Amino acid sequence: MPHIFWPPPAVPRLIKLCGRNEEMVKNEAKRFGYKSYCTDWKELISNKDIDIFVNLGPNNTHAEPCIEAAKAGKHIVCEKPLARNAREAKTMLDAAEKAKVKHICNFSNRMIPALSLAKKLMLEEDFGKIYHFRVNYLMDYYNDPKIPKTWRMDKDLAGSGITADLSVHAIDLARWLCGEPETVMAITNTFIKERPISDSSSKKVKVDVDDASIALLEFSNGAIGYLEATAYATGRRAFVGVELNAEKGSVYWNFEDMNNLYVYYVDERRKDTRGYHKVDVSQEYHPYFDKWMPFGEMLGYSATFVHTAYHIADSIINNTPLEPWVATFEDGYKANVISDAIIKSSETGRKINIAY
Amino acid sequence: MPHIFWPPPAVPRLIKLCGRNEEMVKNEAKRFGYKSYCTDWKELISNKDIDIFVNLGPNNTHAEPCIEAAKAGKHIVCEKPLARNAREAKTMLDAAEKAKVKHICNFSNRMIPALSLAKKLMLEEDFGKIYHFRVNYLMDYYNDPKIPKTWRMDKDLAGSGITADLSVHAIDLARWLCGEPETVMAITNTFIKERPISDSSSKKVKVDVDDASIALLEFSNGAIGYLEATAYATGRRAFVGVELNAEKGSVYWNFEDMNNLYVYYVDERRKDTRGYHKVDVSQEYHPYFDKWMPFGEMLGYSATFVHTAYHIADSIINNTPLEPWVATFEDGYKANVISDAIIKSSETGRKINIAY
Amino acid sequence: MPHIFWPPPAVPRLIKLCGRNEEMVKNEAKRFGYKSYCTDWKELISNKDIDIFVNLGPNNTHAEPCIEAAKAGKHIVCEKPLARNAREAKTMLDAAEKAKVKHICNFSNRMIPALSLAKKLMLEEDFGKIYHFRVNYLMDYYNDPKIPKTWRMDKDLAGSGITADLSVHAIDLARWLCGEPETVMAITNTFIKERPISDSSSKKVKVDVDDASIALLEFSNGAIGYLEATAYATGRRAFVGVELNAEKGSVYWNFEDMNNLYVYYVDERRKDTRGYHKVDVSQEYHPYFDKWMPFGEMLGYSATFVHTAYHIADSIINNTPLEPWVATFEDGYKANVISDAIIKSSETGRKINIAY
Amino acid sequence: MPHIFWPPPAVPRLIKLCGRNEEMVKNEAKRFGYKSYCTDWKELISNKDIDIFVNLGPNNTHAEPCIEAAKAGKHIVCEKPLARNAREAKTMLDAAEKAKVKHICNFSNRMIPALSLAKKLMLEEDFGKIYHFRVNYLMDYYNDPKIPKTWRMDKDLAGSGITADLSVHAIDLARWLCGEPETVMAITNTFIKERPISDSSSKKVKVDVDDASIALLEFSNGAIGYLEATAYATGRRAFVGVELNAEKGSVYWNFEDMNNLYVYYVDERRKDTRGYHKVDVSQEYHPYFDKWMPFGEMLGYSATFVHTAYHIADSIINNTPLEPWVATFEDGYKANVISDAIIKSSETGRKINIAY
Repeated sequence: MPHIFWPPPAVPRLIKLCGRNEEMVKNEAKRFGYKSYCTDWKELISNKDIDIFVNLGPNNTHAEPCIEAAKAGKHIVCEKPLARNAREAKTMLDAAEKAKVKHICNFSNRMIPALSLAKKLMLEEDFGKIYHFRVNYLMDYYNDPKIPKTWRMDKDLAGSGITADLSVHAIDLARWLCGEPETVMAITNTFIKERPISDSSSKKVKVDVDDASIALLEFSNGAIGYLEATAYATGRRAFVGVELNAEKGSVYWNFEDMNNLYVYYVDERRKDTRGYHKVDVSQEYHPYFDKWMPFGEMLGYSATFVHTAYHIADSIINNTPLEPWVATFEDGYKANVISDAIIKSSETGRKINIAY
Repeated sequence: MPHIFWPPPAVPRLIKLCGRNEEMVKNEAKRFGYKSYCTDWKELISNKDIDIFVNLGPNNTHAEPCIEAAKAGKHIVCEKPLARNAREAKTMLDAAEKAKVKHICNFSNRMIPALSLAKKLMLEEDFGKIYHFRVNYLMDYYNDPKIPKTWRMDKDLAGSGITADLSVHAIDLARWLCGEPETVMAITNTFIKERPISDSSSKKVKVDVDDASIALLEFSNGAIGYLEATAYATGRRAFVGVELNAEKGSVYWNFEDMNNLYVYYVDERRKDTRGYHKVDVSQEYHPYFDKWMPFGEMLGYSATFVHTAYHIADSIINNTPLEPWVATFEDGYKANVISDAIIKSSETGRKINIAY
Repeated sequence: MPHIFWPPPAVPRLIKLCGRNEEMVKNEAKRFGYKSYCTDWKELISNKDIDIFVNLGPNNTHAEPCIEAAKAGKHIVCEKPLARNAREAKTMLDAAEKAKVKHICNFSNRMIPALSLAKKLMLEEDFGKIYHFRVNYLMDYYNDPKIPKTWRMDKDLAGSGITADLSVHAIDLARWLCGEPETVMAITNTFIKERPISDSSSKKVKVDVDDASIALLEFSNGAIGYLEATAYATGRRAFVGVELNAEKGSVYWNFEDMNNLYVYYVDERRKDTRGYHKVDVSQEYHPYFDKWMPFGEMLGYSATFVHTAYHIADSIINNTPLEPWVATFEDGYKANVISDAIIKSSETGRKINIAY
Repeated sequence: MPHIFWPPPAVPRLIKLCGRNEEMVKNEAKRFGYKSYCTDWKELISNKDIDIFVNLGPNNTHAEPCIEAAKAGKHIVCEKPLARNAREAKTMLDAAEKAKVKHICNFSNRMIPALSLAKKLMLEEDFGKIYHFRVNYLMDYYNDPKIPKTWRMDKDLAGSGITADLSVHAIDLARWLCGEPETVMAITNTFIKERPISDSSSKKVKVDVDDASIALLEFSNGAIGYLEATAYATGRRAFVGVELNAEKGSVYWNFEDMNNLYVYYVDERRKDTRGYHKVDVSQEYHPYFDKWMPFGEMLGYSATFVHTAYHIADSIINNTPLEPWVATFEDGYKANVISDAIIKSSETGRKINIAY
């Protein structure tokens, strides 16, 4: 981060890395230059040198460590989904707010320059009434039945399946770009119901979570839309399409074409050359790009983590607000409320009202 | 048609054109070379020279004329949707079957060469289990609130709104390419609830049908999917995206790029050059293209009507089956059953089971 | 044409079709509804009922029949290239001008709505100084060495190879959209130097013309550019890319995506949403589209012939100018001058000055 | 680099940074973590701790420092173009070879995963005879006449203009992917012939180099092609299109869509689904991507520098060959020979033979 955001608000020191497998954590600590490592997360909490606690563990390891970190006065960055369900997420949000620490739920899409520009347009332009919002999170990484069961396919550890892993991203984008949803109707499916326990074993165990999820949303502003997430969209490795249609314009983006945002205006100088603008967002006047190399430089997904690191440092040192660019535990909690509603609707076949 | 399909199964004679506005129908009859014209559709039924009755009227004018045409032994091509609702459609299907005439419900997308190739692949290839099917019918022709109310926005005349106009296309594609749906959950909306009665009047009347419609489907083969239709997708004039993902491959198509079909195979000679094939379907070995000009000739939407004309003529003269290429009244009826379910689910907030 | 342009300037009558193979010409005359047919083109010239003489023959059959038609006072549409070389073309131009008949050299690209819009923009907008013009005419129809030699691969019959067949299209686009070229430097190649004499024979004969051609142009307005034409661009069936870059904007088009024009403006309301507009030219306010079906209707290449038919009829009946939309024999002659220069430069390795 | 290539062949230490502006070099040394800094490059040469000398200076500062570094036994990475002309480049190549040090000319495109895959295919597949090779290096960063003159627009400092800056990239891609060129014909232009001396001054000075360059190439293997480079392609920020067409297949790539390679095979299982494969090269079985995050992770341009750092370290420590992945001074020299020929052809209007 300091190489890019220069002068940086602060230069992070990598104090201690924690992981459950000692050999692996030792190796990774060396790789990334951490001063030390441990296998018990409580060592991170009790370490007085640590100001920021970053939680990248499986979903079932988010709540307790984050709550303890908050109690110890540490700022927190927690990977999405914030928790396995809304109830658990609420305890984390409450703890972080009570402790008055900075808290980020890492919905990394907000840090993608093209989507940051989309948000900027929603804040600065008058697009009038919003009609539609849609997200297709199309991947195919579970397509092969030989892929073993992981913690993400285990309800106890993950909360839910693709809904917890991908739909929460789509939910955050919906809330961020379009507004608050009022109702949800959804279907989910588990295409491959049993998987090997490991690469080397033919023994199979049950997959007890959803591996595809489609939700219909009605927003309080009158818009309607859907959020689709799947790891069975054969041939789509990382197609994440996001589109918003409003009275006076539209925006469209897709992760496969990460550095372009497509923008449509109803009112243009000439009607006969109206059409989606293909905006290469890699210019010096685009969000984040003034920090990187000039004109036409393509950025990759890893840049998003650099941007998040900047925001947490800047927020602490200069006391700047995290929102709207970075999602907080409040956003994480609300995403959990909606993902719970998706699962409930898919189980009951009924429309569910959203209430935070 | 005979210019393209040469030698043609038959050369159609344009006997009589019927319309309710005498001046207009007279003009159009002259334009397209009809021998005569009339303003009472019953003249078409009683005319012994007419073998094929083509019904392009508003939805409320489909049932009675088609049923009378069937009784008179005429073959029938009827514009979609077959009827305003499933009950009405069933009477038409029953009449056509009883009369043993040829009957086509003009779901014109089946006649688009790229989609014909998609169907061919579904019939000839083993794509394994189907996971996903999705259609986005994105247009923006109702976006402007100054557009007056038409018969398509009137429940009595049209049955429903965008669901009757566009979702039925999507429904037919779903049944044709993916299989029979078992359940539907849907939301609809009416974004602009009042419209002027005409271009020249400021008087407004209520729009009593849906103008956007999104339906979730569960198919009997285990696939899940959605069908979205709207005339409020600002900036999208005719984006009709169709995608099917299966265990061993995928197909994707979009009307804006009408002459290309995108096909993905999981099994390729080299793993590292796997990817969607962009198939320009305008070659001599592609459906319908052997009849047109060679290599790389682009076709437009109007070609679909030429293809339909060929099929009805060929079916009558050579007694060839219409299915799978052309939709029959049975397909039209089933699309009405499903569109009724979409409306019902959107009204009740519940999942609806499909039963023909 | 009258079905589309209604009311039409005139309804063409198809008087007589001429071809050298009696069986084929008889069949085609029947197919397209000609009143009669013949195998001697002089019968067309002497026929008093014929007002418009359309010459679609091989290049070596353009000059004499067109000159005779002009002498007989007939209006002429001649397929491109106008002739086998500039000298021959000049005799045709002189004859047509002397006879004061209407004359069209059928550079069909001008009739493609997206390119018509590009021309309209060049006429109406101030794009400032033009920097670049480029055309890639990429096809692959000669790729297979088993394809037999045709008249297009014979210097006596065709004049030159791919330069006569495709580069002349590119040349006309360059002159039409960018301006007059002053110099040419070019290379050509003959990748497959011998071909079978027919599908059924293994006997091979020499190909004595170019089958790929790339020319560099310097324009009198200061722009530079290139024109590439090939039938060996493996996998490209009909990629015809056309791009013009100027001080204040750019336009881009490609035949594979026939109904979209891409337009860029340097000056936009917001700098951060500048980018190529993807203009779906199929709206009622786009060239030619007001005559076809409304909003989003895709057109194919065959529409261009309808538009040409309209222009020749309109020009005769209403005495409207053909230029700028339709190319005349003057344009055809100038294209021949430049294609001669391409061949000469490729033979001498030197820059050639263009002089009409 | 060590964060990505783990375990790395070596962990670089950043010993000393050199620059002519003391304040700036001090700041940058701090930013990137260099131990020290200097303003005289000879300090780098005399420093015994430095094993690798990296030269990122303007073109006129390449030769002497690199030659001295070679004499001092240091391995060298030098930015492209290697020198201002072929004669100067030859002295650098000779010095590096005599000193038996590792030498890289940083043609960074080779490090882009999609292009690395293209090279891999050229090495592993039999595409038969190559017909065409083309590169369009389309940018627009000089479009604005208010941009002041830089060292890149000064013949003494840069050697030539856009030819030295961009065409050399295209030349290296041509030699790497297609083969050795035998002849060159070219045109260049200087669209804006005078520019301000600085952002704050209205005084103008002459631009004495080319700012657009198009070259036609004939290759020794029979292929033909062109290399276009310009900074006046209005609206194109970084469109770098690379295409190769051969008897049995084609590859296409464009920098705006950096992580996809398009591959076409003539021979496929089904003729009717032939078409360009859109290959998302971000999978674990693609060049370099096994080192980065899994499936669908997008990479940006800065990754190429990580890959170069790996190769130089790996080559030194494990004595692996740099070619074919990394360009050496020999490649740099040959690119200078060809760029000299481009300039000469544009000045003489004649075809120039390439001789190394």
